[in-house]
Amino acid sequence: MGAPPGYRPSAWVHLLHQLPRADFQLRPVPSGFAPQEQEYQQALLLVAALAGLGLGLSLIFIAVYLIRFCCCRPPEPPGSKTPSPGGGCVTWSCIVALLAGCIGIGIGFYGNSETSDGVSQLSSALLHANHTLSAIDHLVLEMVERLGEAVRTELTTLEEVLEPRTELVAAARGARRQAEAVAQQLQGLAFWQGVPLSPLQVAEDVSFVEEYRWLAYVLLLLLELLVCLFTLLGLAKQSKWLVIVMTVMSLLVLILSWGSIGLEAATAVGLSDFCSNPDPYVLNLTQEETGLSSDILSYYFLCNQAVSNPFQQRLTLSQRALANIHSQLLGLEREAVPQFPSAQKPLLSLEETVNVTEGNFHQLVALLHCRGLHKDYGAALRGLCEDALEGLLFLLLFSLLSAGALATALCSLPRAWALFPPRNPSALCSGSRLSEPLLPAGL
Amino acid sequence: MGAPPGYRPSAWVHLLHQLPRADFQLRPVPSGFAPQEQEYQQALLLVAALAGLGLGLSLIFIAVYLIRFCCCRPPEPPGSKTPSPGGGCVTWSCIVALLAGCIGIGIGFYGNSETSDGVSQLSSALLHANHTLSAIDHLVLEMVERLGEAVRTELTTLEEVLEPRTELVAAARGARRQAEAVAQQLQGLAFWQGVPLSPLQVAEDVSFVEEYRWLAYVLLLLLELLVCLFTLLGLAKQSKWLVIVMTVMSLLVLILSWGSIGLEAATAVGLSDFCSNPDPYVLNLTQEETGLSSDILSYYFLCNQAVSNPFQQRLTLSQRALANIHSQLLGLEREAVPQFPSAQKPLLSLEETVNVTEGNFHQLVALLHCRGLHKDYGAALRGLCEDALEGLLFLLLFSLLSAGALATALCSLPRAWALFPPRNPSALCSGSRLSEPLLPAGL
Repeated sequence: MGAPPGYRPSAWVHLLHQLPRADFQLRPVPSGFAPQEQEYQQALLLVAALAGLGLGLSLIFIAVYLIRFCCCRPPEPPGSKTPSPGGGCVTWSCIVALLAGCIGIGIGFYGNSETSDGVSQLSSALLHANHTLSAIDHLVLEMVERLGEAVRTELTTLEEVLEPRTELVAAARGARRQAEAVAQQLQGLAFWQGVPLSPLQVAEDVSFVEEYRWLAYVLLLLLELLVCLFTLLGLAKQSKWLVIVMTVMSLLVLILSWGSIGLEAATAVGLSDFCSNPDPYVLNLTQEETGLSSDILSYYFLCNQAVSNPFQQRLTLSQRALANIHSQLLGLEREAVPQFPSAQKPLLSLEETVNVTEGNFHQLVALLHCRGLHKDYGAALRGLCEDALEGLLFLLLFSLLSAGALATALCSLPRAWALFPPRNPSALCSGSRLSEPLLPAGL
Repeated sequence: MGAPPGYRPSAWVHLLHQLPRADFQLRPVPSGFAPQEQEYQQALLLVAALAGLGLGLSLIFIAVYLIRFCCCRPPEPPGSKTPSPGGGCVTWSCIVALLAGCIGIGIGFYGNSETSDGVSQLSSALLHANHTLSAIDHLVLEMVERLGEAVRTELTTLEEVLEPRTELVAAARGARRQAEAVAQQLQGLAFWQGVPLSPLQVAEDVSFVEEYRWLAYVLLLLLELLVCLFTLLGLAKQSKWLVIVMTVMSLLVLILSWGSIGLEAATAVGLSDFCSNPDPYVLNLTQEETGLSSDILSYYFLCNQAVSNPFQQRLTLSQRALANIHSQLLGLEREAVPQFPSAQKPLLSLEETVNVTEGNFHQLVALLHCRGLHKDYGAALRGLCEDALEGLLFLLLFSLLSAGALATALCSLPRAWALFPPRNPSALCSGSRLSEPLLPAGL
């Protein structure tokens, strides 16, 4: 009943979190999230290094395949009228690879936008939390100022008016003491005042980094799309130079793809470790950064019935003091106003102040309750650990697909352009015999 | 300071909302969202009918093109060794159209998942609101029961114990009256009790419909993907029967695509009208469905400083009464316990009840404050009017792209298979001369 159903780690998080980790000496590393420990950093770097291994292996494979193709192809009789066997197969496998690359690009665009969605959910939750925290500070400041103003002006006037009757002055002094006590209790509620950590700043930093990450991926995706399309165009027009340029570009994009595989895999593994049990890490980090007591932080980060409201006592005391002030004012109005009509104006003004303060007090209670801030925390976690992680896995799939597709294309392209006729016409769709698509050489 | 930045209509909403609408007599219809009015329904049906017009036009165009191609093609000399001019161009235009269709399918998958995200955001906001509303009812019930129990048992015991001293009995009776008043005030706060509208039910209905919508689109997308891939395969293997079957399937998918264009366009237009100014419509609808006063509904749906908390007075009165009970109990403890030691137990138990009730009261204040429910309302609107509408527009783009691509493919495919050799080998990549991709007939 207290907190609404919050964040729960997804199946992907569990799966990634269960993968074994090792440091550079291949000793097992526990999979708890500890980015400050050297062992854990080494485990993540090792995950990234696996991608480097993949790149090396695929480059070796391509080189061996092409050398074998160049050196071991059967000698072709000059002026032969039949094309080399498998020529069409090579072109078609190249087209299929490029199509797979295009499907990968679609997946990549989806993953990139999903990641971006998740991160923007994180930063909007941070902005919302910042809004709540600053609203608390602002409201407390306003209430304290209003009470202080009432004490300085109306209560002083009242005491001066009521001077002839000491018991009434004592009642007014009682109200003053209570009001001062309320103001003091309230000041203790502005718990985020003077805290060096600003969620707004964190949100801005996150958005800034995410913007460049998004842009980098969009550029990579567009580059790969252009490579695929121009390669297809080169095959269609049988333009040797275009296919050669695209072969070189494919090599470049292959290297970039493996690089991004490394980055994505390491980030996904780290993120899954964080997401499998985020509360202790976030609690510790926030405590270090803000210096707030663990009572307050556990109240907001856990928000269940086991953790009591750390402001409960202050709130109850303030509320009782406000109710007492109200009944004292009512008593004074009954006793004093018939005798001192000039006391009515400050009394009414004081009652108005108490009413407004009680209204603001309800708003403060609502703001201080853990529901709001805990919901932001849950939304931030869901953004990071569900949407962003899922997007990251889609990006990983894209990178793997494109690495595979580009490796296949790199194997096929040189064989395909070896089949092109020596001179190629420049017009596509010219209707001439030589512009027929993918027409093998020698026909 | 009150409410966090909420929902604001996006540029797409403004753009779609500004399009002119007309009924069946082509009289202009105001673009305010009014789904119960016949004129407005006609305007939406007219938008959907435009898609029917598009389907008709594209079918006529394809028919004219194909008839012209069949009847007006130049007679081919029998046994001619040159292929008909433009044969490769036809095949290539077919491939390009199918590629455009594939890009459209990617966009469609993205749009479908975006729409699904938006709708699931809507239903999770509804679930969250339901949670808050039932938590309010539950908490009020609990507090009222606890107070009633205390009045029935401890206060009765106390009155019996204190019977010898009438002024103490009077104080206890005062506390009883206050507790009964608090219980009565609290009962007025459970405003959702007995309301016939259940957000849970609405969320389940929405999820149910969305599930089938999502599945229907996934099936349509997969069907189109299969058509594209099998058509490409048919072209590659030069398999006449496969291409003929796929031509028929393309026609079917073309009709489905235009149908979905109509649905999507009408939904997008209706949604933009709703989203350009959702508050009045939602307020009216909720008032009709729930019968709640407009004070309460505007407080939650608008949640700005212009609308005051409709529970403010009840909350303040309850809070003051609780504080009074507390001070009366303290007074009784001071006065009565030295004389009647047996009064201590019920007094301590009553104080505990008041403390717990004050703690629950703070939780109730937090639940009743508009921030939480208004945030859910904003999240629901953002889900529907940002994510779902954006997804719908992507689906519209997919449908348009696929309608265009399929129309082009339908124009090209019969020309392409007319170029196939009379008998085709079944093996792809067999290495034989006839399996070269897209080899024109007559070679």
